[in-house]
Amino acid sequence: MKNYKIKMAYDGTHYHGFQRQNNAYTIQEAVETALYRLTGETAVIYGCSRTDTGVHAREFYFNVRLETAITCRGIVFGVNNLLENDIALLTCEEAAPEFHARYDCRGKEYEYLIHNSEIKNPFWNNRAYRFWYPIQETLLHDTAQIFVGTHDFRSCCSAACTKENTVRTIHQFSVTRTGEMVSFLIRGDGFLYNMVRILVGTLLYVNDGKISPARIREILESKNRTLAGKTVPPCGLYLNHVYYS
Amino acid sequence: MKNYKIKMAYDGTHYHGFQRQNNAYTIQEAVETALYRLTGETAVIYGCSRTDTGVHAREFYFNVRLETAITCRGIVFGVNNLLENDIALLTCEEAAPEFHARYDCRGKEYEYLIHNSEIKNPFWNNRAYRFWYPIQETLLHDTAQIFVGTHDFRSCCSAACTKENTVRTIHQFSVTRTGEMVSFLIRGDGFLYNMVRILVGTLLYVNDGKISPARIREILESKNRTLAGKTVPPCGLYLNHVYYS
Repeated sequence: MKNYKIKMAYDGTHYHGFQRQNNAYTIQEAVETALYRLTGETAVIYGCSRTDTGVHAREFYFNVRLETAITCRGIVFGVNNLLENDIALLTCEEAAPEFHARYDCRGKEYEYLIHNSEIKNPFWNNRAYRFWYPIQETLLHDTAQIFVGTHDFRSCCSAACTKENTVRTIHQFSVTRTGEMVSFLIRGDGFLYNMVRILVGTLLYVNDGKISPARIREILESKNRTLAGKTVPPCGLYLNHVYYS
Repeated sequence: MKNYKIKMAYDGTHYHGFQRQNNAYTIQEAVETALYRLTGETAVIYGCSRTDTGVHAREFYFNVRLETAITCRGIVFGVNNLLENDIALLTCEEAAPEFHARYDCRGKEYEYLIHNSEIKNPFWNNRAYRFWYPIQETLLHDTAQIFVGTHDFRSCCSAACTKENTVRTIHQFSVTRTGEMVSFLIRGDGFLYNMVRILVGTLLYVNDGKISPARIREILESKNRTLAGKTVPPCGLYLNHVYYS
């Protein structure tokens, strides 16, 4: 039996997130079903992350153990032919037997896209969050730097988060504009449940004047979710890169 | 009663083209229904073009005559709120009473996008045609120049085309690559039924060596549809610009 490290990408619009559920169709179920149809093996895939309903991935890794004699290239092309066109395997390689896509992950980069316009754009439907009020990207970029570093992000994760340790390190957090599109790019060693969407939502509160930049440190120190901004919608969120050592 | 010139954009994936049909949902029906819900008026919209099922528009004009006292801005925002997010009105202005979006159109620009890759990209699903075999964009660009100018395009339109006059002038036809994406950009005074998709399909035959560039003139002169390449799928086609004098 070999352990494969597989990179994929997906448009998450039509899936209830990555992780298999009893009552909803997920990325995991789609991929496991395709692998079964290709190889005849009932294999569990181990994802690098859970993504929520509607969240996208430009780069997502999973590992899976298979007996099959099919080559890596054959797995990629075979599974792609069996999957819908909103999920694609990109690469496949044989990994060390102990490799685990989640436990071995050393960091991740997410991008959150906001279409900052009064008028909707049909081509960004489900692919970006549309926000009418003008975004001050320089202010938000400067404010975002307060989150960079090692902090307890208890106040910036979902109340449903069950992790004991909520300390994470953000390596980079930039806010840039290209025309009507504002990109929030964030890289760190790990992210809590809804953390990226709450950080972006908190910056939008700063944009709206509901929170002053000076209060961000207080909010972090409070460890109180209710002081941060609201969770922005999933459609703007992309898992962009996953780092392994 | 005022005559309005309205610009819109749409992702055509889920519509059976622009023109109203008895048994299928179209862009025209969606927009006319939204206009009715906003104004209470049963108005016909006159489009600059018919687009086929699955074809997209970044810029599409129609005109419509309305009694409403709602402002242009109110029409844009009101209709956008009533439409699905894959159609958007972009601008609205009062036009001369005799303005007609189709008859007054002086030219159009289309883009056809080919994702030239062995591996599918979930984010180009329904938005580009995926073509595996490597595209020689320089060869195709050079060959495309043979179509530029005034020609009888009878051999490059659908056999179902009922136009008597099939002479059209192509002002520009370029083929360029950006990474895995190959763009066919074509501007002319008018286009016949399926003409852009057949021109691109013919260039793909040149790419595959099924047609030599030297035969293009012969194909035009033959006025025989069966000598040109096949009609490429609609998902890669975008109406890009519409010109009025």
